[in-house]
Amino acid sequence: MTKKTIYIAGLGLIGGSLALGIKRDHPHYKIMGYNRSDQSRAIALERQIVDEATADFREFAPLADVIILAVPIKKTIEFIKILAELELKENVIITDAGSTKYEIVRAAEHYLKDKAVQFVGSHPMAGSHKSGAIAADVNLFENAYYIFSPSCLTKANTISELQDLLSGLHARYVEIDAAEHDCVTSQISHFPHIMASSLMEQAGDFSESHEMIKHFAAGGFRDMTRIAESEPGMWTSILLTNQEAILDRIENFKQRLDDISDWIKAKDEKTIWEFFNRGRQIRKNMEIHKRAGVDSFYDIYVDVPDEEDVILEILELLRGTSLVNVHINEENREDIHGILQISFKTAKDLAHAKQMIESYTDYQVFIN
Amino acid sequence: MTKKTIYIAGLGLIGGSLALGIKRDHPHYKIMGYNRSDQSRAIALERQIVDEATADFREFAPLADVIILAVPIKKTIEFIKILAELELKENVIITDAGSTKYEIVRAAEHYLKDKAVQFVGSHPMAGSHKSGAIAADVNLFENAYYIFSPSCLTKANTISELQDLLSGLHARYVEIDAAEHDCVTSQISHFPHIMASSLMEQAGDFSESHEMIKHFAAGGFRDMTRIAESEPGMWTSILLTNQEAILDRIENFKQRLDDISDWIKAKDEKTIWEFFNRGRQIRKNMEIHKRAGVDSFYDIYVDVPDEEDVILEILELLRGTSLVNVHINEENREDIHGILQISFKTAKDLAHAKQMIESYTDYQVFIN
Repeated sequence: MTKKTIYIAGLGLIGGSLALGIKRDHPHYKIMGYNRSDQSRAIALERQIVDEATADFREFAPLADVIILAVPIKKTIEFIKILAELELKENVIITDAGSTKYEIVRAAEHYLKDKAVQFVGSHPMAGSHKSGAIAADVNLFENAYYIFSPSCLTKANTISELQDLLSGLHARYVEIDAAEHDCVTSQISHFPHIMASSLMEQAGDFSESHEMIKHFAAGGFRDMTRIAESEPGMWTSILLTNQEAILDRIENFKQRLDDISDWIKAKDEKTIWEFFNRGRQIRKNMEIHKRAGVDSFYDIYVDVPDEEDVILEILELLRGTSLVNVHINEENREDIHGILQISFKTAKDLAHAKQMIESYTDYQVFIN
Repeated sequence: MTKKTIYIAGLGLIGGSLALGIKRDHPHYKIMGYNRSDQSRAIALERQIVDEATADFREFAPLADVIILAVPIKKTIEFIKILAELELKENVIITDAGSTKYEIVRAAEHYLKDKAVQFVGSHPMAGSHKSGAIAADVNLFENAYYIFSPSCLTKANTISELQDLLSGLHARYVEIDAAEHDCVTSQISHFPHIMASSLMEQAGDFSESHEMIKHFAAGGFRDMTRIAESEPGMWTSILLTNQEAILDRIENFKQRLDDISDWIKAKDEKTIWEFFNRGRQIRKNMEIHKRAGVDSFYDIYVDVPDEEDVILEILELLRGTSLVNVHINEENREDIHGILQISFKTAKDLAHAKQMIESYTDYQVFIN
C-alpha cells in the first residue's frame, strides 16, 4: 500500500474536516497543512488533524500527491496561479472546495494547462455556523453531496482516485459540469441568499417609519431571513464569481413579481389561488422534506401518544447514542397524537435506535 | 357577576382556542358557536368548547353580549352585512379574527354605522399548521400578540371589556390602527409569503431544465420556502384585502433587486459586501431571535458539555413537564461545548425547569 502525501491548504472547518475524513480510511497517509494563522495551525497540530503545518503555501506543494485548496474562492484562484510556477510531482491531483465552480475550473485550465497535473473542481456541500479548525468534524460530510466538476485537466482516473481518498467522508459523490453546478446553486442557494438579505434590509428600512415591525416579525419571517446572518465575505465572492446565472434568476424573479402585481391589481382571485396552490404542490413533490447537503442528520420518527414523559421514556432506551435533536412535531396531523422526531449524528445510531424502540415499545417507527 | 353570552362564529383552530381561553377565566359565561360543518359542531360540543352550537349564523346572534367572527375574511364581511339586518342586543360588542384589518374595519363602519353596536377589529397573531376544532388549544395565544384595531364604532370601554373577556388567553394586547396593521403585516408576513411561493415556483420551473435542483435544495432553501405549503385560500384573501400595501412592498423589492443587479454587473465588491453585512446587522439587532407571535414557547438554555447522555440527565430532572422541543445548539460557538435548548409550553414549567437544573447540576442556565 502506497503511503501518499496529501496537502490541504486552509485548515478551517472544511479543510480540517476533509483531513479528518481522509485519515479515517487512510490512517497511514501523511497529511500536511497550510494556514496563515498561527492559532489555526497550532489547533490543527494539537488535534492531530494534520501531521505537519506551514504558514508558507509554497513549502509543501512540491511534496504532495494530492493538493486540496480549501480556502476562499479568490485565494483558490491565487493559489492555482502560484502552483503554476512551482515544481510539482508529476501527475499530482489538484482540487478545491469552493462554492462556485466555473471560474475556478476555468482558472485551473488556463494557468495549469502546460503542466503535468490533474485538476478537478470540488464542492463538498456541507457547512455549519461553526468555523475554524476547532470545529473540524469527521462526520461533517456524512451523507452530504460532494460535487466533482471536471476540467480539461481531469484524466480518466482522477475522480475515482479522489473518491477513494475521500471515502471516509461517507459523502454522496456526484459529477456535474461546472457551469451547470453554478446554474443549479444560483437557484437554490445564491439567489435565495440575496432574497433573504434584501428582505431583511427592506424590513429594516420600513421599520424606521413602522416601528411595530420590530415586534411582530415572527415564524415565517424569521425562517426566511435566517441565512441573512451568514458571513458576508463568502457570499460576496459567490456573487462575483457566478454573475450570469444569478443575474438571470433576479430578472426571472422580477418578472414573477410583475405577474403577481398584475393579478392583485385585477383582483384575479382564481389566478392568485392557483399561484399559491402551485407553489404548495411543487414543494410537496420535491425532495425538500428530506435533509440533504447542509446539516445532514439521520432522523427517526416515532408515533407517540401526547403524554408527559414520553420523550424521557424513549431517551432512556437510547442511552449512549449521539442524538442531536429531539422534537415533538404536531404539525399537519389531524389527531392529537404527536410525532417524535429524533436526529442522530450517524447511521449506526439511527439503526440502533430503531431496533431499541421497536423491541421495547409498541410505538410505530418511521425512517425517512 | 354578570353571566354573559358569547357567540363565536367559526369553530376552527382560532375560534375554538378563543372559546377555551374565554372559559378559562370565565367558566360561568355561556359560549355559543356557529359552524356550517356538522363534524366541527359535534367536536366542539364533545370537547365542551361551546355550550350550544348552530349551523345557522343568524340563530344565536340576537342573544349575544359579544360576537366574535372567527371565519375567513370574505365570510367575516358577509356576516357583518347579515348582522346589520338583525335585531341585536343593545351595545353588543362585535369583533373578528381576520389577518387583514382595514377592509374589515371599513366594512363594519359602513354596514353597522346606524346600529347601537360596538365594533373593534381583532387579529390574534398565532396559528399552527393544525386546523379545526380538534386542534383548539387553550394555550394557543399564550404570549402571542393580540391586535385591536379600533373603528368609529369602538367606544371608550370596548377594548378594555374585550381584554377582560380574553384575559385567559394570556396574550399580549396591542392597539394599532387598521391601515398601519396592514402595512406592518404586508412587510413581515404577506410579501414574504409571496416571495416564498414565487421562489418555490421559480425553482420548480427551473428544475425542468436543471434536474439536480430537486436533489440539492437544502437548509436555507428549505427554510425560505416552508410557508409556501400553507393553505392557498387564506393567502388569496389576504392579497385581495391588502392590495395597496403589498403592491408597494413588491415595487420596493424590485428596486432593491435592480440595485443588486447593478452592483453585480459593476463587480462592486465593496457595495455587495456592505449589503450583506447590513442585512446581517439589522437581523442581529431586531427582536427576531426571540419567539413572538406564531408558535410562542418558553425556552431555557443550558450550557452543557459535549457528552453522551447529557440530554437524558437533564430530562430526568424535568420529569412531568410539558416540554415540546429539545435541541443541542452548537452554532456560533467557538468552544466545543453545546447549548442545550429546551422549549416548554408554559411559563410555570419553564420556571420549574430552571430551578431543578440549577439545584441539581453545575450547568449554567439562561433564559431569553
